Amino acid sequence: MTDDATRALRDAIARGVPERLILADIEDLRPYECDGLTAYRTVPRLVVLPETAEQAAHVLATCHERGVPVVARGAGTGLSGGAMPHADGVVLSLAKFNRILGIDPQNRTARVQPGVRNVAISQAAAPLGLYYAPDPSSQIACTIGGNVAENAGGVHCLKYGLTVHNIVALDVLTITGERLTIGAGALDQPGYDLLALLTGSEGMLAVIVEVTVKLLPKPQVAQVVMGVYDRVDAAGVAVGRIIAAGITPGGLEMMDNGCIRAAEDYLHAGYPVEAAAILLCELDGTAEEVAEDLARVEALMRDAGASDIRISQSEEERLRFWAGRKAAFPAVGRISPDYYCMDGTIPRKELPNVLNRIEALSQRYGLPVVNVFHAGDGNLHPLILFNGGDPAQLHRAEQLGGEILELCVEVGGAITGEHGVGFEKINQMCSQFAKDELVQFHALKAAFDPKGLLNPGKAVPTLARCAEYGAMRISHGELPFPELERF
Amino acid sequence: MTDDATRALRDAIARGVPERLILADIEDLRPYECDGLTAYRTVPRLVVLPETAEQAAHVLATCHERGVPVVARGAGTGLSGGAMPHADGVVLSLAKFNRILGIDPQNRTARVQPGVRNVAISQAAAPLGLYYAPDPSSQIACTIGGNVAENAGGVHCLKYGLTVHNIVALDVLTITGERLTIGAGALDQPGYDLLALLTGSEGMLAVIVEVTVKLLPKPQVAQVVMGVYDRVDAAGVAVGRIIAAGITPGGLEMMDNGCIRAAEDYLHAGYPVEAAAILLCELDGTAEEVAEDLARVEALMRDAGASDIRISQSEEERLRFWAGRKAAFPAVGRISPDYYCMDGTIPRKELPNVLNRIEALSQRYGLPVVNVFHAGDGNLHPLILFNGGDPAQLHRAEQLGGEILELCVEVGGAITGEHGVGFEKINQMCSQFAKDELVQFHALKAAFDPKGLLNPGKAVPTLARCAEYGAMRISHGELPFPELERF
Repeated sequence: MTDDATRALRDAIARGVPERLILADIEDLRPYECDGLTAYRTVPRLVVLPETAEQAAHVLATCHERGVPVVARGAGTGLSGGAMPHADGVVLSLAKFNRILGIDPQNRTARVQPGVRNVAISQAAAPLGLYYAPDPSSQIACTIGGNVAENAGGVHCLKYGLTVHNIVALDVLTITGERLTIGAGALDQPGYDLLALLTGSEGMLAVIVEVTVKLLPKPQVAQVVMGVYDRVDAAGVAVGRIIAAGITPGGLEMMDNGCIRAAEDYLHAGYPVEAAAILLCELDGTAEEVAEDLARVEALMRDAGASDIRISQSEEERLRFWAGRKAAFPAVGRISPDYYCMDGTIPRKELPNVLNRIEALSQRYGLPVVNVFHAGDGNLHPLILFNGGDPAQLHRAEQLGGEILELCVEVGGAITGEHGVGFEKINQMCSQFAKDELVQFHALKAAFDPKGLLNPGKAVPTLARCAEYGAMRISHGELPFPELERF
Repeated sequence: MTDDATRALRDAIARGVPERLILADIEDLRPYECDGLTAYRTVPRLVVLPETAEQAAHVLATCHERGVPVVARGAGTGLSGGAMPHADGVVLSLAKFNRILGIDPQNRTARVQPGVRNVAISQAAAPLGLYYAPDPSSQIACTIGGNVAENAGGVHCLKYGLTVHNIVALDVLTITGERLTIGAGALDQPGYDLLALLTGSEGMLAVIVEVTVKLLPKPQVAQVVMGVYDRVDAAGVAVGRIIAAGITPGGLEMMDNGCIRAAEDYLHAGYPVEAAAILLCELDGTAEEVAEDLARVEALMRDAGASDIRISQSEEERLRFWAGRKAAFPAVGRISPDYYCMDGTIPRKELPNVLNRIEALSQRYGLPVVNVFHAGDGNLHPLILFNGGDPAQLHRAEQLGGEILELCVEVGGAITGEHGVGFEKINQMCSQFAKDELVQFHALKAAFDPKGLLNPGKAVPTLARCAEYGAMRISHGELPFPELERF
């Protein structure tokens, strides 16, 4: 694109948006060049920060008219590059849509703008005894609009569901700038379920300008059982047995030795640093219910080979147990120059098998892999540790990552758990889906965005890309984005 | 269509389906002329009952090639005419897809064919201590494929969600006969959420040939509290307070005097026949949890004006309390020559207001309306009693029904709760949705079925139909299908 074309675009946008909300200088654009997937960066032509839905609609209509790509952006905490800019495009930041519009305790809902931070909803609802359940580890920073776009999960999604299970309505703008209201306060809705379709659609179908979330009553009691294991696969066995026993924990998380040590060094959560693995199992409900489930979980954990069991004895201790888990990623960041955070999902019963095979792959590639993940969901987050300054290590890390995702698909799982496909895993979509399924995805995309202007190059690969990538299959464990500048 | 064309169609279908599975004689076609919405009937050209997915794919591909409409059909228990045949089309019955393919207790899922009856899944899972939660009143007869197509609800959906919240994967056939696998055992899925999109799409997008459902552990204890009221609106107030108190009952149902009397006459459930209304509130969980919630619900019910409280003292009594509720529709069928079952949803806080206004409408139209419904969900089922032999009464019943749906939309609700749009409410969709929203629905439909052959004339009205119907708005409370033969 020429500078002239960009200037003309800016002028057209400025006809409906105040100049101060349009960023065009390189030093203003640079902070938007990537999201939480920092390995890949692109500077956009313009960044626009509208303050009203009318302004946002004007940006979309202007871009649609001129065939300019639009990438919507929340807090930029996403880990799969879903908000990475397009070099020819506009970044539409929803940062200024940051108001809570209302809380309705009788219908247990809150109406919020998309730029409201996840944790701010629960804080606002707390005086009413209510909270918003999905809790990504980034909940202090990430915004509800991004949560909806990525169908975000979190520690408590095992019991309370993903974002899609916790929202009841959306207001969105189409690429032509039309506003649609989707869903309502009611349980079921006539017409096609656009609410679920848009949730997790990664900015490919529409831009969210308002969200109505469900609120839940806070449980009376919550306690965490920590099971300590000498073998990683034994902890995996315990997970399967807890679920098969009919217990639904609030959260059921696993950390292996590498993560335990990193977290303990970082913030002294009280974890046993010699353990091969720990399980953190939260139980919530009434006091009696929690007491009963605690006893059952303890017995099941011991039965699967736990060498020690610790139970949080106060709310402070419960929060400390979780603090180590929630800070695991930054903690690992301190012990390795770089890490690559994977996000795959497998059937729970495959946990022991898959953990053993990841360990074998780690040894074969000569790169440490540490594990911290939503065990109860079967949602893995292996972290591959490497030094990005060494091109050979970087290449091996990518190959190892590809093999881990291939393993997830092989045992009947999926290449994402809660981080989305974004830019990062677009090639792996070719192995996850058959050609007919991708054709159907493209037809659906065209029904919303026939010119393909919303977040192009993300989430769903073209068939041509899959053909290039190689026969709709990860054949050599590659994660190749060679065409891109890397930092 | 000429007889010759139908013969040619039958011959083409017979190239991939055994002759014995193709019905073409009028006496064989007649049983398929309607579903549970018996007021509207159409005889199809052919009915085909394939036994395999390959046969079903052949039927679809053949119809697609020839531009012939296809209406998929489960058990035919739907109440909105979603399975009503098309006069130029083929009915594709999934009745022979009736096998349970597997139960996986560790992942808590069951893989079943679409023609398996709802209750049969829970029966098969019972020896493992598991069950399938959504329980439409027709659960003895209705099939899981139809449940998915209509996103069916039931008494226990307040706590456990609708069908969409209780399935994890689908295998479907497109109109061209291609098989797509949608969803998997994992919590989140990459790509657009076709699973939710297809659930509740009323046979307009694809034909279901396999369903993987979630199973839940059976609660240890379940008890029902019956609250007895002298005023209908007081019962409505109690509903709002129970939910606002942070209690989530397994089910929370309301019946008014007309329904109480009809049910009591029919099967002697032990209901108080003088009461203006009763609430049935089921609490489930551990013994301690249920005991605690029982006490809180009892206090809240009394506080809202209950004149009496009864609590089920045995499993037998609990089932008897529900038996009256689940048989309410046939019970009302005994006291009136005809009734029209409405299905709208409103925000819970509007219950007292809406119930009073329905009573006023009932008096204005001179037709009794009895109420039995999922109060906790705000999902109303007013039953309008009339004599279909009297054309004036029929006309008044239709007008009254239209006004009730208009009222639901006016207070922020929706024109369906759990029965779908089907053929019955297609005109009301014009008042529920704005033009841009309907345009988006049609674009989405075309992405799956560009020729519009899957269940035409159902669920989503054309814009032309809405224009005819009158300015996208129910202006005179009409429910007009004058073009159709009526029985």
